[in-house]
Amino acid sequence: MKQNEIFMNMALQEARDAYDEGEIPVGAVLTCNGHLVAKAHNQTERLTDITAHAEMLVLTAGMDAMHSKFLSDCNLYVTLEPCIMCAGAIGLARIKQLHFAAFDEKRGYRKYSEHVLHPKTEVMSGLMELDSSKLLKKFFRERRSL
Amino acid sequence: MKQNEIFMNMALQEARDAYDEGEIPVGAVLTCNGHLVAKAHNQTERLTDITAHAEMLVLTAGMDAMHSKFLSDCNLYVTLEPCIMCAGAIGLARIKQLHFAAFDEKRGYRKYSEHVLHPKTEVMSGLMELDSSKLLKKFFRERRSL
Repeated sequence: MKQNEIFMNMALQEARDAYDEGEIPVGAVLTCNGHLVAKAHNQTERLTDITAHAEMLVLTAGMDAMHSKFLSDCNLYVTLEPCIMCAGAIGLARIKQLHFAAFDEKRGYRKYSEHVLHPKTEVMSGLMELDSSKLLKKFFRERRSL
Repeated sequence: MKQNEIFMNMALQEARDAYDEGEIPVGAVLTCNGHLVAKAHNQTERLTDITAHAEMLVLTAGMDAMHSKFLSDCNLYVTLEPCIMCAGAIGLARIKQLHFAAFDEKRGYRKYSEHVLHPKTEVMSGLMELDSSKLLKKFFRERRSL
């Protein structure tokens, strides 16, 4: 597997952990120069905190690990297109590359503005999209039938 | 003083605390039915976390205090127009009323989209604008002369 696939696969594993905990299954991984810096999954239920998205948690953990408010040498892998809050945070952190798997037509940041990211941030989408969207669909289907 | 002024004044005191700590001076206060729920100020330097804006901290503290992911009975007072990350979080939390003092033409959320807030959220701006912008200008003037 190529590096991007390895890290997105790791983010997917985080999403599966979220699923197992009854959380909306989204996972995120932060890397720097090909090394893992932090990984996290959505914890809005466990923390009773609607801001505890995978991206916010992994960015905070990453800034702590890197001792820096800016992560301009870091890449972020996330299994779902970030919401506008997370995209704003990714913009503030000046992430080098943003890779997201599934698209979120309803709540994704591109619906509002793509300019919330830092102008230097490269965006790549669609890697392992099917695995991520399958897991999300399974989660919401099961929720609806409760 | 009217209730809105009392709470915005409290947010301004938080902004002054941020100033005293060498942080960009922004403060926020969360209330519910006229009662104080949480207050916070910007801590991006202290926490080495670019997401540690006053609004994010007060929302997280507020959700913890209210034992709820949603704050639809709560009002948020903040001394500066929220950035897009914070506006996204305020939208997710479904805040009842957002009061902000100074306008942020450069980084404020209105530059991108006003629809990031929840459709039911009422927005009021300009209360104690001068006090807040004076403090911010003082901070940035002093930083430039360092």
